[in-house]
Amino acid sequence: MTRRLFILVTGMPGSGKSVVVEEARNLKIPVYVMGDVVREETIKRYGAVTPELMVETSRALREEYGEEIVAQRTIERIKPCEQVVVIDGVRSLSEVEVFKRHGDVVIIAVHASPRTRFERLLKRGRPGDPSSYEEFYKRDMTELSFGLGSVIALADHIIVNEGSVKEAKSKASKLFKKLLKEVKSRGESCS
Amino acid sequence: MTRRLFILVTGMPGSGKSVVVEEARNLKIPVYVMGDVVREETIKRYGAVTPELMVETSRALREEYGEEIVAQRTIERIKPCEQVVVIDGVRSLSEVEVFKRHGDVVIIAVHASPRTRFERLLKRGRPGDPSSYEEFYKRDMTELSFGLGSVIALADHIIVNEGSVKEAKSKASKLFKKLLKEVKSRGESCS
Repeated sequence: MTRRLFILVTGMPGSGKSVVVEEARNLKIPVYVMGDVVREETIKRYGAVTPELMVETSRALREEYGEEIVAQRTIERIKPCEQVVVIDGVRSLSEVEVFKRHGDVVIIAVHASPRTRFERLLKRGRPGDPSSYEEFYKRDMTELSFGLGSVIALADHIIVNEGSVKEAKSKASKLFKKLLKEVKSRGESCS
Repeated sequence: MTRRLFILVTGMPGSGKSVVVEEARNLKIPVYVMGDVVREETIKRYGAVTPELMVETSRALREEYGEEIVAQRTIERIKPCEQVVVIDGVRSLSEVEVFKRHGDVVIIAVHASPRTRFERLLKRGRPGDPSSYEEFYKRDMTELSFGLGSVIALADHIIVNEGSVKEAKSKASKLFKKLLKEVKSRGESCS
């Protein structure tokens, strides 16, 4: 039996992680979003979803079940036939370890400078996005407190995303295709 | 008076940080190595230098004088006329903050995948370099425990260094020249 390949896509807020993940979907790679686990648990607990309730639930889940709970629940959702999957939202090395216990792992970090990310998030203005530099900085510190920096430092591939969405898509597409090719040469497929 | 520009160069062991720093020296940018502060203190305390004694002294210094001591002592060494300097060896955001209090800061992270770094370090074989994957992993974890991952995550520029020394030098040279140009346009010089 071949081992499943987990492609973990990670990055700071505003780095362009979602553009990269979207490109995986375009290539028909199944994508599992770790935040979905938290989102559903938030609805279960509070009957509503806000960024604050998500953070609270994320903390509570980890306190109640340990650091690995979100990764574990994400893995439980994957269909048995899916041999290559993209995981969106890994935030710590202990989560990376969970995936390593269940298969091969490749980490892709999407990176942009703080200045670029701040400008992007200001423009984007999703609920929970910062409206001031102080808010931006605080959110960065929250992400880093989980250990996101260590995951980025240990990435196997970095997509530097200072330019356009088109450029990011092109870089992501090239990288995913290369990874898929390597997998195919190991004879994996989902039929 | 113009503010001093600190170009902080950071990276995991084996990333190729020293190649990038060397390129700064080639461009006549003064380089200050934070490890030199630790090295001198180690000699003062033990009369000898080994990688283990360096780690021990680094820990002791921070315990005795706080997280910021190595950064502070590094800044004290800079000549007043030096308006642009490269700092080699920042390991935590609290060290970055020290430099921000004393001038403008640009962070350059040099990045290579763990596989590439491990192979490089095996080949290099400096004292303190790992001879097994376990040792390599342990050293990575030590670096990350200082907070190095957060510095990399918040870098303003990333030099991806998976290829040859020549390529890394060329990327570094281009980036330093760009930064120097920006500084010149602000009218800074050391005479």
